[in-house]
Amino acid sequence: MRYTIFGESHGPAIGVTLEGVPAGLALDWDFIRAELKRRAPGQDDTSTPRREADEVEILSGVFEGRTTGTPLCAVIRNTDTRSRDYSKLRDMPRPGHADYTGQLRYGGYNDYRGGGHFSGRLTAPLVFAGAVAKLALGERGVTVTARVSNIGGISDPTPEQARARILEAKREGDSVGGCVRCTVEGMPAGRGAPDFGCNVEGIFSQYLFAIPAVKGIAFGAGFGFAAMQGSEANDPFCLEGGAVRTATNHTGGVNGGITNGMPVEFEVVFRPTPSISKSQRTVSLSTMEERELVVEGRHDPCVVLRAVPVVEAAAALAACQVLGLD
Amino acid sequence: MRYTIFGESHGPAIGVTLEGVPAGLALDWDFIRAELKRRAPGQDDTSTPRREADEVEILSGVFEGRTTGTPLCAVIRNTDTRSRDYSKLRDMPRPGHADYTGQLRYGGYNDYRGGGHFSGRLTAPLVFAGAVAKLALGERGVTVTARVSNIGGISDPTPEQARARILEAKREGDSVGGCVRCTVEGMPAGRGAPDFGCNVEGIFSQYLFAIPAVKGIAFGAGFGFAAMQGSEANDPFCLEGGAVRTATNHTGGVNGGITNGMPVEFEVVFRPTPSISKSQRTVSLSTMEERELVVEGRHDPCVVLRAVPVVEAAAALAACQVLGLD
Amino acid sequence: MRYTIFGESHGPAIGVTLEGVPAGLALDWDFIRAELKRRAPGQDDTSTPRREADEVEILSGVFEGRTTGTPLCAVIRNTDTRSRDYSKLRDMPRPGHADYTGQLRYGGYNDYRGGGHFSGRLTAPLVFAGAVAKLALGERGVTVTARVSNIGGISDPTPEQARARILEAKREGDSVGGCVRCTVEGMPAGRGAPDFGCNVEGIFSQYLFAIPAVKGIAFGAGFGFAAMQGSEANDPFCLEGGAVRTATNHTGGVNGGITNGMPVEFEVVFRPTPSISKSQRTVSLSTMEERELVVEGRHDPCVVLRAVPVVEAAAALAACQVLGLD
Amino acid sequence: MRYTIFGESHGPAIGVTLEGVPAGLALDWDFIRAELKRRAPGQDDTSTPRREADEVEILSGVFEGRTTGTPLCAVIRNTDTRSRDYSKLRDMPRPGHADYTGQLRYGGYNDYRGGGHFSGRLTAPLVFAGAVAKLALGERGVTVTARVSNIGGISDPTPEQARARILEAKREGDSVGGCVRCTVEGMPAGRGAPDFGCNVEGIFSQYLFAIPAVKGIAFGAGFGFAAMQGSEANDPFCLEGGAVRTATNHTGGVNGGITNGMPVEFEVVFRPTPSISKSQRTVSLSTMEERELVVEGRHDPCVVLRAVPVVEAAAALAACQVLGLD
Repeated sequence: MRYTIFGESHGPAIGVTLEGVPAGLALDWDFIRAELKRRAPGQDDTSTPRREADEVEILSGVFEGRTTGTPLCAVIRNTDTRSRDYSKLRDMPRPGHADYTGQLRYGGYNDYRGGGHFSGRLTAPLVFAGAVAKLALGERGVTVTARVSNIGGISDPTPEQARARILEAKREGDSVGGCVRCTVEGMPAGRGAPDFGCNVEGIFSQYLFAIPAVKGIAFGAGFGFAAMQGSEANDPFCLEGGAVRTATNHTGGVNGGITNGMPVEFEVVFRPTPSISKSQRTVSLSTMEERELVVEGRHDPCVVLRAVPVVEAAAALAACQVLGLD
Repeated sequence: MRYTIFGESHGPAIGVTLEGVPAGLALDWDFIRAELKRRAPGQDDTSTPRREADEVEILSGVFEGRTTGTPLCAVIRNTDTRSRDYSKLRDMPRPGHADYTGQLRYGGYNDYRGGGHFSGRLTAPLVFAGAVAKLALGERGVTVTARVSNIGGISDPTPEQARARILEAKREGDSVGGCVRCTVEGMPAGRGAPDFGCNVEGIFSQYLFAIPAVKGIAFGAGFGFAAMQGSEANDPFCLEGGAVRTATNHTGGVNGGITNGMPVEFEVVFRPTPSISKSQRTVSLSTMEERELVVEGRHDPCVVLRAVPVVEAAAALAACQVLGLD
Repeated sequence: MRYTIFGESHGPAIGVTLEGVPAGLALDWDFIRAELKRRAPGQDDTSTPRREADEVEILSGVFEGRTTGTPLCAVIRNTDTRSRDYSKLRDMPRPGHADYTGQLRYGGYNDYRGGGHFSGRLTAPLVFAGAVAKLALGERGVTVTARVSNIGGISDPTPEQARARILEAKREGDSVGGCVRCTVEGMPAGRGAPDFGCNVEGIFSQYLFAIPAVKGIAFGAGFGFAAMQGSEANDPFCLEGGAVRTATNHTGGVNGGITNGMPVEFEVVFRPTPSISKSQRTVSLSTMEERELVVEGRHDPCVVLRAVPVVEAAAALAACQVLGLD
Repeated sequence: MRYTIFGESHGPAIGVTLEGVPAGLALDWDFIRAELKRRAPGQDDTSTPRREADEVEILSGVFEGRTTGTPLCAVIRNTDTRSRDYSKLRDMPRPGHADYTGQLRYGGYNDYRGGGHFSGRLTAPLVFAGAVAKLALGERGVTVTARVSNIGGISDPTPEQARARILEAKREGDSVGGCVRCTVEGMPAGRGAPDFGCNVEGIFSQYLFAIPAVKGIAFGAGFGFAAMQGSEANDPFCLEGGAVRTATNHTGGVNGGITNGMPVEFEVVFRPTPSISKSQRTVSLSTMEERELVVEGRHDPCVVLRAVPVVEAAAALAACQVLGLD
């Protein structure tokens, strides 16, 4: 299942083209809409007030409610696109954003309005694609669940702690980062390979780093492995109901790049949203002078809560590749 | 520059096939041998006593001392392969190793002796490939350097601290993990793209996760981003000698999946070597009973010191892909 | 420039997602519409009377009239879709069509109406993609032109001969095949490589075989090489205005998988349209009995005339890949 | 099963790296050697007198006589490499050869001796790879057989006719081209897809055009389709032993890019060997003057007889990809 996400924040539409979807999959629209709603902004005061209908239109690849197996194109029209003047961003790139790198990469031709193709809004079609992937995985007994594991430095926060930490940053005109921890259960053992391009960790990381603001990924005990000794880190084999399992899962379900039948577990870190209200230093590209910049507009003080279904979506697509679904 | 590493620890040879090598590159053998020596085991009492000559034979792709641009195959013969009996590992897989997953993946047909294709020994051809990549990058002003950033929980250890920590674990018949931090300097701005398969973080992670025992990768401030606010995390733009730079480099040289002209920086974590002398719990696959296992043979109480040139090699190959070298 | 064509003949829309489009390309809509018109059916009595507006809507990847370099999605709505009953085709597959293979491949879930995803109508987005590719090539001095080289066995027919041959078949309720010969001029020398996946002939053939009904491709003298001697076939080198050229171009601009600076020339053969009015033998898949089938509906007695811009489109996309445009 | 062929005609060795080989395949060396012998030169007076031992050494990927599933590297040492002076070819490229394009492509750094990486000798590792592929296919009931279908313009020649035609050209210091027709039997129906990169014809063509001197490929009735009417070309469905088959196989086993269960059939054309003894026109690249060139050395007046196992090898690898073997 290969996907191509297209669209710009303020263009006509965003969407995704999915190739290699298994044929005959019943599209459960209640489920798909619920997934999109989990990601949608404007649900409370911790996220951007931008409201998006996120109505998905299927252009191809579905017939009589089921996937046909041919490329599936799904489109979400852009509606709430305030026509502010974004042209200042061309001259004075926002720190932490892709304004500057996008301009260099695309020779100044990219659509800079509202982040353009770099906008977090493009995670909506990713969640759609992930929902299709989850339906395909569900038929094979594989489930994907993620949760917030850190907000602004607080590990495993309660919802109240998370909300308080985000609103504290919001009051300061600032933002916070965090982590999401994800578990893929039901993956059969023996998938993947140690080689470049084939190992399970590498495959998952390709999908996860395609999410904007993800800056790191670690499996199982992750960076905690550095402080462990082998005798702690090694997962002892044991028998459970006659099946070979491991008593612990420090390795996150993968040994030598190959699934071992335990849940595939990983954590990703999100940088704080670069959009903040505080004054920041930047450079005017026209005059080549250092300047102060105050970014206006709607901000998301923390994307981590809304990122949970996005991480699940990327993980579901990765799991489909590991399983060779097609 | 695409590479395929082949070989098994106790087979006739290990090696690498490199495609897309730029033509006309002078192979500096002093440099290549020095790189291989940095990785070679048996240099002191912190690594496995296995001695490897690591003499590289070039079978193709080099003519009159320069690369031809056609596929380059380099081979290292296996010499010091003690013919111990490894067959016990088939029945009783070692915790933390790929004995069990390899057997499942390859239907029991993989060469299990000494770790077979999963052996850390296969990082020797990777270092060779990386040396070629470094020579190609060097012509373009790009350098790759890595260093040990954690050994057994000690951050940025001095050589003495690192050695002491490793020998402490060794005395206990145990092993330790650690981290390597890597910097790629001289990368031009504007390379990469935000999309799946094209973003710089995703490309680097594919190469890094192909190193055995790597379990996580994080760019710039990495997992530290979780505890940062946007106002700290955003790298302010500034002018340096008339050029646009950032005053800090928390983002690790990449914004929106695209290089920003600052050094690409990342850290990887290595799990502790799974080979330890302590007794461990495992399962006999023939009798399906839980058992105790004591693994004999030569062990590396810590691979992190020797992994530094391996990380550089993988990073150099990744940088070549980002630059589109061919 | 990678493309994914999506859509079904009787679904909501057909279209294409283009990745790797060079940024800053001005979309010349007069040119694009003219290209689509060359392919459009219903222009005279030699083609299917189905009328298609073929109005292209750009959903992404274009800003202020120029390509942004990010994925470009273009959509053509399906309008003239007569709601005939196609379900008979599920039980009794039409000879020469993909009714049977499509059903097997997609487990019976593919949209069978009007050929579904196999419909020749999907060459419309291919022509759009090719028009974008031609604009990119044009900036680099590369042009692509094709012509009908055979209709129903008549080599290099005049328009009158071609029309007469097609109408003759049409009167019989039959169809004819033919050939298209294509020339790509201005390709720089030294592109491609002999290796699998890199050679110019292999790259072009991938694109050309993605056109429905193409069953063969041959470069330069093509199958005529079988009857030639080396002394005839070898293209002598000569000097033309100080530049190295070849006096003949039997090899079709490619030696050892690499462009030689002469025009890349090839011919493709199209099978006769499988849609004919004559009675044909088939099998009822429900009763597993042999049956006679008369196919109703609009037919194209020959696709070769309309295929000329389609061949050019595929060749233009192939040329972009050979040139590494991005 | 992906392969990378490496080596140069006069370098230390030629060989192939195979990834994705199914594990557990017993390597039948009698069969493999017989395949290599079919391709080997010097068997009679119709081929080059160069003698090659073609002794294959397996470096990896085989354990206890069976494939391990990890990358398999096989090497053939170059022995009979006469150290003639080839440097003249750098200045005066041979017509029909890749001397000129190779020099441009690789900036003059490629190994030009004896054709270097472009040498027909590199089809030996391809035949080895094909033999492994045939063994994998054999376990699945798929067989690949090819035959000479044209020599120097004579269709379906008897061995005597072929030999006479080749020796006639040889006496004149010339060479002849020809065709090979190949049949893949036992391919299950429903494999492939119509889309770019997935269709069966495109996959086979990628593999076949990687054979030096192949200039065209056509499936089933091939270029003969141009002169056919739909009523002749369409293969009627029928029942054979209760199974759906087609009464004819004009389409060559593929409809809409998908296998239909009939044999996959195609023909490839080989250009005449460019190596001839006759004087030819070329250009001196140092003086930029037109010159006459007489090429000395051992020539193959026709490669088509020896190409039969090479075509089978490429087809077997293509069939493995279509079947998704791994």
